[in-house]
Order: sequence, then structure tokens, then C-alpha cells
Amino acid sequence: MPRYALLVEYDGAGFVGWQRQAEGVSVQGVLEAAGAFLNGGVPPEVAAAGRTDSGVHAEGQVAGMDLLADLPEERVREALNARTRPHRVSVLAVARPGGEWSARFSAVHRSYRYRILNRRARPALEVGRVWHVPAPLDAAAMHEAAQGLLGHHDFSAFRAATCQARHAMRTLDRLDVSREGEEIVLRVAARSFLHHQVRNLVGTLAKVGWGQRPVSWPHAVLEGRDRTRAGQTAPAEGLCFTAVRYDPPLEWPSGRGD
Amino acid sequence: MPRYALLVEYDGAGFVGWQRQAEGVSVQGVLEAAGAFLNGGVPPEVAAAGRTDSGVHAEGQVAGMDLLADLPEERVREALNARTRPHRVSVLAVARPGGEWSARFSAVHRSYRYRILNRRARPALEVGRVWHVPAPLDAAAMHEAAQGLLGHHDFSAFRAATCQARHAMRTLDRLDVSREGEEIVLRVAARSFLHHQVRNLVGTLAKVGWGQRPVSWPHAVLEGRDRTRAGQTAPAEGLCFTAVRYDPPLEWPSGRGD
Repeated sequence: MPRYALLVEYDGAGFVGWQRQAEGVSVQGVLEAAGAFLNGGVPPEVAAAGRTDSGVHAEGQVAGMDLLADLPEERVREALNARTRPHRVSVLAVARPGGEWSARFSAVHRSYRYRILNRRARPALEVGRVWHVPAPLDAAAMHEAAQGLLGHHDFSAFRAATCQARHAMRTLDRLDVSREGEEIVLRVAARSFLHHQVRNLVGTLAKVGWGQRPVSWPHAVLEGRDRTRAGQTAPAEGLCFTAVRYDPPLEWPSGRGD
Repeated sequence: MPRYALLVEYDGAGFVGWQRQAEGVSVQGVLEAAGAFLNGGVPPEVAAAGRTDSGVHAEGQVAGMDLLADLPEERVREALNARTRPHRVSVLAVARPGGEWSARFSAVHRSYRYRILNRRARPALEVGRVWHVPAPLDAAAMHEAAQGLLGHHDFSAFRAATCQARHAMRTLDRLDVSREGEEIVLRVAARSFLHHQVRNLVGTLAKVGWGQRPVSWPHAVLEGRDRTRAGQTAPAEGLCFTAVRYDPPLEWPSGRGD
């Protein structure tokens, strides 16, 4: 049964999240329903590299889909994009990874971006894409604090109560904070993340950015391993799942105009 | 009667355009209704630097609003932003230009950006913000063709039938086309524009980008002064009014967190 890798973009606002739920529209459900057309009417199982929450966007989610038939990659992409309308999900490219590839378990590196609109006036254009924070944030202080969280640690302090991971040991490879005009942009990367880990890191660093806590505080929170000591969970809408890396790397055919 | 300058951002999708119409919600109408609160219940007249069409966005529109009272700039901004909800318009900053300043007639330089999403897959994230063009565009050819349109010319070939300007002589200062990842971005600037001028320029350059017309063609269209020879009017949703410059320059107080 051939396995297809899908590079997927979606707007998280219209979905209950990646994962199928008893109620509501999920990205997984929309892709599975669209895939049934290519699979003799039977919805194929679709698994993702990252099971994003409701409101969280993706510009580089990767999913695996098993289909009964051997089909050209572009045929799969076009058929899925025709049948996922009008939902705001789009298959950018399709590959055939071969071997024992799994979208979730073969991923070795995941990247997220978190956008904070840091100005007094509420957003008119980026509604639903940014966390609007009117009070000024010190991006340099946030960045410095973030560097104290890099490396292999027990991230229990930044883990959702609902997190189902066996343990909280994770290796944070990147946590960069920079000001880009009116925005504070956080770029985060790790092999894998705990549930709400990125949003809890952002909410904690924001307290440093506001000057409510010293630069040393997030590292102390990390060491305390106590979720109740960390900052708030930053809103889902500022978060975007940007990229997944595999070993060996997935080769995407160019999605442009072919 | 003090005149206030407003720096305004809006999402064009929710509006019939800048200008008040018999039916539908306009940006002007929303701002005038909000301004009434600061003006003894009487909606003030609001005039803009550029009267954008329905679907056209703005991140740097400038409008003038006459109010009866002398009010602190931040008070005006906060009051307008509280009362324009839930419409997708936001006042980023308020200034007091003084003198005979007019948002429309004192403007000496207007800038627009036009975004084309040039990839096979339809947009999921940038729906309503880009013109989706699946066939590959040659940005370098478009840019080269665009340079032949710079300067002082009769732009009748790129003017809407509904354009109310007295004549079609305009000076195009900038028309840059570049590829930025999956996007083709056009940056356009002039003292002033004709109705649909930017969108007609984009539609014409696209024909060069597709290889349907030679690089020399847009200049020939310009010289022909015949609208029927130019390309299509590119969709409104890819267009954003980015900036207006005044002489003397308007000084905006920082809108961040104050």
C-alpha cells in the first residue's frame, strides 16, 4: 500500500485542530474525506508530524496518507485540493518517501514561529494570526532569557496538564526572539515538543518582556518543574507550525506551476 | 476647528471600499460613525489620501478628520478604536498636522504593494490577501518590462472607464517586481494614481510574466493609450495601500504601548 507524504498549509481558525474530534471540523478529517475519492471511497488514515491545536496555523505541516493505488504525486495533490474546498487547507506538494517512513515518528526536527503584534492599536489585517500585546515588550530581554532554556531539560513546567507524552525530557534547539517592526517574532525548534510547550514558553517570556520578571526567571521556572509557576499559555492564533525535517530528508517536487 | 490626521490600517474584504456608498459598510462610514462620539454626536467628515476600492487593503492609509474639540492625539486614537469594533479597521496613530493640511491634496507620494501567490496550490493562509496565479511567472521579465513604464506619461491605457481624474498624465516613480519565495511582489509608487492604475499595470505585466507578450509590450500599450489593449485588471485582494508621504512630512507619535 503506497504511502504519500503531504506538505500541508492551513488556517487554524476554521478547525477544532489537526486531530479528528467527535464534533467539529478537523484538518485530519477534511484530508481523510478528500482522500476517500482516491481510495475507492474509503477514507484513508492520515497522520501528521504535529497534532496542532485549534487556532494554530501551519505553513509546513507534513502528513502521511496510505492509498490503495499507485498514483502520480501531482494527481494526488490536485485531487485533494479540489476536494478540500472550501476549507482553508491546501496541499502544497506530495512526495513518495518509501521505506518505513512515518510523518510523526521519522521527524527529527520541528519548527514553529510565534508572532506577537506589539503595538497599542488592535490588528485589522493580522486578526487571528498574532497575539495582540498592547504593552511594550523588550525583545532583547526575552531573547536573553530564552537562551537559558536551550538544551536537554525536563520541561514539566511548560507542559499542558492534558499532555500525553510519557516523560517531559525534551531538547530545545532554538528559541530566538526578535523585533521585526511592530512585531515580536519567536522562532522555536526541537526534535519534538510537549503539548502547549511553545505557547507556555511564549507566555513565560512575555513576563520578562514586560519587565515583570527578571531575565533569569524562565530558567528558574524550568528548574522548578512546576507548571503553576510559569506564565500564561499564549493564545493559539499567534502560533504557526512552519517546518518538519526528516532523516533522510524528504524530497518535495517543486509545487510551482507544474 | 482642529484637524486630526489618522494613520489607518484595514482589511478591504469587509468593506465596499474607502468611500461611503448608498449601501454597504465603508471604511469612511465606520470612521465617521466612530468620530461622532468625539464630536458631540455629529459624524465628522473624513477624507482619505487614497480612495481604495472594495477588497483593497491598507496598512498605511492616511485620513483627515475635523473635530470640534481640542483633544489629545492618543484620546482620539483610543476612542476611535473602541468604536470601530468589530469592523476590521484600526487607527494606528493620530497626529495634528496644522496649517492647511489635507490628507488628499497635501500628499506628495503614495505607495502600494501588490502580492501574487505564484504556486500551483491554492492559498489556505493568505486567502483574500493575494492574487493566486498557478502558472509560473517570470519576475525578472516583469521587472524589466515595468522599468519601461517609469516616468511622466499619459496612462490612459491603464485607467478605469470610471476614472474621474481630469487627465491621465501621471509620473510613475517606482514599479519593482521581485520574487520572494512563492510570491511575486510588486512595489509601486507615484505622487498620485488613476483609478485601477496599479491593478491594470499588474494585469498587463502578468502577461509578460507568463511569456504571452514580450518585455517591450507594456511600453507599447502605454504609448497606444488604449485601455482595451492592456491586460486584465488584477483582483483587488492582492493590493495594499502601504504609505503616504507629505511635504512637510507628518510626524506620527509612536503608536507602541504609550
